[in-house]
Amino acid sequence: MTGGTAFRDVPRLEDPPLLRGRARFVDDIRAAGGLHAAFLRSPFAHAAIRAIDASAARALPGVRLVLTAADLNPHLTETRLKVALPSPAFRQTLDRPVLASGEVVHVGEAVAIIVADDRYIAEDALSLIEVDYDPLDAVADCVAALADGAPTAHQGAPHNLVGDFTLGFGDPDAAFASAAVVVRETLSQHRGVAHSMECRGLVAIPDPIEDRLTVWSSTQTPHVARRMLCDILGLREDQVRVVTPDVGGGFGPKLVFYPEEAAVAAAARLLGRPVKWIEDRREHFIAATQERDQVWDVELAMDAEGRILGVRGEMIHDHGAWTARGLNVAYGAVSAMPLAYIVPAYRIRSRSAVTNKVPVTPIRGAGQPQGVFAMERLLDRAAQRLGLDRAEIRRRNLVPADRMPYATPLKTRGGMQVVLDSGDFPQCMAEALQRADWDGFRDRQEAARVQGRYLGIGVANYVEGTGRGPFEHVSVRLEPSGRIFVATGAAPMGQSTRTMLAQLVAEQLGGDMANVEVSAGDTATSPLGLGGFNSRQAVMAGTSAHVASIKVRDRVLQVAATLLEASEADLEIAGRAVRVTGTGMQVTLAEIARAAAGLPGFALPGGRAGIAAAEEVVIDPMTYANGSCVAEVEVDAGTGNIAITRLSFMHDCGRALHPRIVEGQVLGGIAHGIGNALFEWMGFDDQAQPVTTNLAEYLLMSATEMPHAISIGHLESPTPLNPLGIKGVGESGVIPVAAAIASAVEDALSPFDARMNRVPIAPHDVVAAMLGDAAR
Amino acid sequence: MTGGTAFRDVPRLEDPPLLRGRARFVDDIRAAGGLHAAFLRSPFAHAAIRAIDASAARALPGVRLVLTAADLNPHLTETRLKVALPSPAFRQTLDRPVLASGEVVHVGEAVAIIVADDRYIAEDALSLIEVDYDPLDAVADCVAALADGAPTAHQGAPHNLVGDFTLGFGDPDAAFASAAVVVRETLSQHRGVAHSMECRGLVAIPDPIEDRLTVWSSTQTPHVARRMLCDILGLREDQVRVVTPDVGGGFGPKLVFYPEEAAVAAAARLLGRPVKWIEDRREHFIAATQERDQVWDVELAMDAEGRILGVRGEMIHDHGAWTARGLNVAYGAVSAMPLAYIVPAYRIRSRSAVTNKVPVTPIRGAGQPQGVFAMERLLDRAAQRLGLDRAEIRRRNLVPADRMPYATPLKTRGGMQVVLDSGDFPQCMAEALQRADWDGFRDRQEAARVQGRYLGIGVANYVEGTGRGPFEHVSVRLEPSGRIFVATGAAPMGQSTRTMLAQLVAEQLGGDMANVEVSAGDTATSPLGLGGFNSRQAVMAGTSAHVASIKVRDRVLQVAATLLEASEADLEIAGRAVRVTGTGMQVTLAEIARAAAGLPGFALPGGRAGIAAAEEVVIDPMTYANGSCVAEVEVDAGTGNIAITRLSFMHDCGRALHPRIVEGQVLGGIAHGIGNALFEWMGFDDQAQPVTTNLAEYLLMSATEMPHAISIGHLESPTPLNPLGIKGVGESGVIPVAAAIASAVEDALSPFDARMNRVPIAPHDVVAAMLGDAAR
Repeated sequence: MTGGTAFRDVPRLEDPPLLRGRARFVDDIRAAGGLHAAFLRSPFAHAAIRAIDASAARALPGVRLVLTAADLNPHLTETRLKVALPSPAFRQTLDRPVLASGEVVHVGEAVAIIVADDRYIAEDALSLIEVDYDPLDAVADCVAALADGAPTAHQGAPHNLVGDFTLGFGDPDAAFASAAVVVRETLSQHRGVAHSMECRGLVAIPDPIEDRLTVWSSTQTPHVARRMLCDILGLREDQVRVVTPDVGGGFGPKLVFYPEEAAVAAAARLLGRPVKWIEDRREHFIAATQERDQVWDVELAMDAEGRILGVRGEMIHDHGAWTARGLNVAYGAVSAMPLAYIVPAYRIRSRSAVTNKVPVTPIRGAGQPQGVFAMERLLDRAAQRLGLDRAEIRRRNLVPADRMPYATPLKTRGGMQVVLDSGDFPQCMAEALQRADWDGFRDRQEAARVQGRYLGIGVANYVEGTGRGPFEHVSVRLEPSGRIFVATGAAPMGQSTRTMLAQLVAEQLGGDMANVEVSAGDTATSPLGLGGFNSRQAVMAGTSAHVASIKVRDRVLQVAATLLEASEADLEIAGRAVRVTGTGMQVTLAEIARAAAGLPGFALPGGRAGIAAAEEVVIDPMTYANGSCVAEVEVDAGTGNIAITRLSFMHDCGRALHPRIVEGQVLGGIAHGIGNALFEWMGFDDQAQPVTTNLAEYLLMSATEMPHAISIGHLESPTPLNPLGIKGVGESGVIPVAAAIASAVEDALSPFDARMNRVPIAPHDVVAAMLGDAAR
Repeated sequence: MTGGTAFRDVPRLEDPPLLRGRARFVDDIRAAGGLHAAFLRSPFAHAAIRAIDASAARALPGVRLVLTAADLNPHLTETRLKVALPSPAFRQTLDRPVLASGEVVHVGEAVAIIVADDRYIAEDALSLIEVDYDPLDAVADCVAALADGAPTAHQGAPHNLVGDFTLGFGDPDAAFASAAVVVRETLSQHRGVAHSMECRGLVAIPDPIEDRLTVWSSTQTPHVARRMLCDILGLREDQVRVVTPDVGGGFGPKLVFYPEEAAVAAAARLLGRPVKWIEDRREHFIAATQERDQVWDVELAMDAEGRILGVRGEMIHDHGAWTARGLNVAYGAVSAMPLAYIVPAYRIRSRSAVTNKVPVTPIRGAGQPQGVFAMERLLDRAAQRLGLDRAEIRRRNLVPADRMPYATPLKTRGGMQVVLDSGDFPQCMAEALQRADWDGFRDRQEAARVQGRYLGIGVANYVEGTGRGPFEHVSVRLEPSGRIFVATGAAPMGQSTRTMLAQLVAEQLGGDMANVEVSAGDTATSPLGLGGFNSRQAVMAGTSAHVASIKVRDRVLQVAATLLEASEADLEIAGRAVRVTGTGMQVTLAEIARAAAGLPGFALPGGRAGIAAAEEVVIDPMTYANGSCVAEVEVDAGTGNIAITRLSFMHDCGRALHPRIVEGQVLGGIAHGIGNALFEWMGFDDQAQPVTTNLAEYLLMSATEMPHAISIGHLESPTPLNPLGIKGVGESGVIPVAAAIASAVEDALSPFDARMNRVPIAPHDVVAAMLGDAAR
């Protein structure tokens, strides 16, 4: 079906507005008569609310509305946000309230909303609300949370266990009983924050003419947001439009529907006026969802030749205070761990613990970096024990190319077998190693040691499930103006989705991308949509667009053939017209559309009206991308500073639809991965008070920290699962980076027998390791 | 396919808001910051414009914008409104300008638009615009317009002939040569005005956030309006939404796209503010399109037994000053004339003449009443000559039931044979005669004459082409809220379209009409649409809704079967749930919709997403309704007043989907027909100056004039052309009424040998006839 599909670097539609400052983010949406909201947030990680007195806030001039849960809830059909992804593994239901009532369970939880003429007044009024809190014991640590006798994060809860599942196959115990070598490690990955450039935000605009509500939102999932708003406000779908303007990054937390969205929308309906709320950076630290805090206690069994026999262990996952999405981060971590390798037996129990911290939901990678980190650390340890080169032990275990497609023993939550659809993992790693001059590294390392410099190298492989189905909606329509209108439920947040779709559609319909208008992330133009997550949009929306465009192309030619009294076989679409090949005869796309919309006395070709196709191509299995990362570092023995001197990345996302966009995505992921490996650390004290709530305390990756020597290479193993042969790439870059860097740091510090089992690795960790702090 | 379709009188969805004053017409649309428009209109029927000075108007406080053609045209992509229905019969192109430039060609033509803070200021400012007109000879009469040496209605035009076609079949000249009886008459029908309760109007609202325009319009064809606005303003379809609120009647003129619509929309874009224009009643008299002024010179050939051998003649049609729609009124008149009868040979030449009057477009009936009037008057005359009862002569010529479906020799403009699809015309007339006590009338008449009272009776038959295709768009979608959302390109203007669609959809989907939301006449919800005209919406939209609902029903059951682990055959939709028949097991429509939108781990049944169907069922042939009308009148010999003492109407529109709505439509049509027969007369002087420009001068039918004794009966001959078996009914009532009344008046005046060859028939016409004014 791909035919002559020429994948290439077309100019991005997104660039002109973005580069000229004409992009419009939520805060750029200025509705006439608009008001501004601010939220009163809990200063305690855990406290009972005895009373709230908002009278002084209400009396402040310029304040239009103050709502606590008691004020708001009578106006709502549902007062809690139902968990998006139900699972039998849940042990408790922890649906978040729109506004806290009776109890607060994390610092930053919204207790009241104030709407005022401007944000300044709203913020001033916040300080006038008096809340009588009764502080309670807080649960700050997910491991301690599950200990007997631990205080509970919610008053009256039986315990802190919220999710409990075991994923596995084969007979791990038998594998371990017969193993030549067993290694066991305790590993942990610390909590981080997503920090999209644009924080969350929305503008809710009630329609003064129709009983409707338009919500401009910086969301990854507009259709989910619409459904939640309908449920909570008791409205029909046609009464609520959720639409995304330009979105300044999502990275996962924006796929969640938040209490603030419900409260702002409800306030706008109550006031009959537009209400805007823009999350400030401090709020992003304490109210946007975060990821991680996982503690792994895992072991690996190997035979004497360094072949994996089995993996087993336990993982404790910090769920945060509420269920904001599901158990999918824990699941994603545990299911990612074995994927790149032939693992005959596997069993990991994962328990998710409630804590008095911001809820955890996926951030770029969605648990997969943690699973890969666990696997790769164990492989390094086993290589050490067996005296094997770290690349060699991986080479012996990677799923070989001749076994593709490889039906792993793993099954998804839905019971579907995980099948690696294509790829050449050994070749991918080999090319990464070659780019990194892996073989020459020992010489470099030794030469440096002579100079007192500590160099290290590390490698990590990953397989990523991408292209989450079951579908994405795309409609393609030739309008009477001759313009091609494309609408999709996909929700771009920086991935060039409009370019991707226009490119695929124009390829079938005349080649003029400027003639294609793409509406994305707008519930008014797409009846269905799943949105942006799980590296899915190019795969799912791209496939629907491709299939729909081919149907529209066929229809254009059918109508044109009738108008031109020619055979379809003799026609070609060129620009904005269809012409009879080799003649001057042509009919414009506008004329074709007008004829198909019904002309007097013109029998509609094919007995159909219009020129359009809507597709929701259903693809249930995920398509698995893969890659290999080699990091070379230099550790400063004096300061503990880690410099990444070279980072080599080979990846395979099937056919690259637009190579520069693919490269940009991988590069962005690498930056994210370096942040996770070395910098980003969201701290809490023992009462779950956040201690890093600004960008001075929280070390966000910036361009300065980005290594100069990054080399990215591409293998292309087209997937058979979609007609374009493409796989997702949005999260790839991040997945192996922390594992590769930890490996490299450990290698650099091998004279000190350091074990880098925790990320991020800070300079003080390095110094501690060099000082022989074996507790690490 | 109709299955158990239970057609019945469900409560109308339209009634509660209409009866409680909560309906919203265009003038009820109040946009924040809205401005108001008024138009400067030509006081001359024909004049050159030498200069326009708008400076004083511009200087008036509160005036925001004044645009003449010179100001406006540079902002338009197209400055003329392209004719909606092109035809090879055109002899001139007369596309209307948005604003007059250089020349005005009818009284009321728009010369400038003023937008001001309120309508009062705008109207005041109109008087400050100085236009230097140079009056020119005006063409007031369509017959005189075609005479040699007539002045032309447009300066520099070669002549006044705009359309010229001949419709016919068989060999009329041979028929006349062999005829036993030939009758010939000159007949005419005078110009009238539509006079919907709500005049035209629109509110154009530019979107301050998106570069878009929403136009609330009292239009019958929102999709046409959108296309025209896109063409004229150079916008894409996704930038323009045309939406109809409640529409207070259309009757034809609102299917035209008008200069005012373009000017108001352009002004709103230029100002960046909402602009409203509501046509006042005076403007409706001089700027909304009108119908008629037809002069027929026709003859009928019969054999000695009163069987039709042929019809031939000429008809001159007043086109007005511009082409606002096409030649379809003339065509509709000529093609309607022979339809009810077996006519072996037929030839009518129709010429349309340009005059300096408001353009002519269809009004309810769209020429068919004129064609029927011509046929029925000739049949009466032939009956007189042959000494046959007027019913008997019709009985001998009506298409008999056993010839159905009857392929007439007539072909449509598109070359498709006109096939009468079903009906029993003789039975229909027989029942009308019986209701009217036709056979007892002579006794009543003679008894009255003895008292000096003049009673008369008349009968007329008609066949109406309804359900104009080729399609209408309807989509049906089950939303996650469990609500059913129906969108259609059909545009209701009082026909209960929402009720009709909700009824058809609910019948397939649980029976709860309150669970069905219908969006009609909104380009934002329907990608395609033809709108409301030609008695088409129940036929075309009803069929698409029926077919789409059945598909949605099948899909609901498919998904429900998977969720309930049951066989589809055991399931039934009841209210808002699907249950396993005879058990308590059920799943709600909301749960079904959510599952079909994609749940984790749920394989989408049928490999498809969502629960929706969009249909544009293409039906090319029209479905022909028919009926018979008997009017009994009493003519006041002193005043000439005509009282309709009894009106009996039998009609057949196939299956009656909602009998009360059908009856309401027929009754409304009858009222319209009485107005056409006796009252409505739009007068012009010899310089084409309108002389009836208010409702004191123009005699609009009102409830007072409605006869009490109206008896309506129904035959039901289901059409095979659509699965519901329905035909259109919106225009039926009007078609035979003038013919039947003219026949009755003539019958009443038979002692005076009066010929009622012209409608409307005013009291002074009656008096003149009784005085022996044989010139009639």
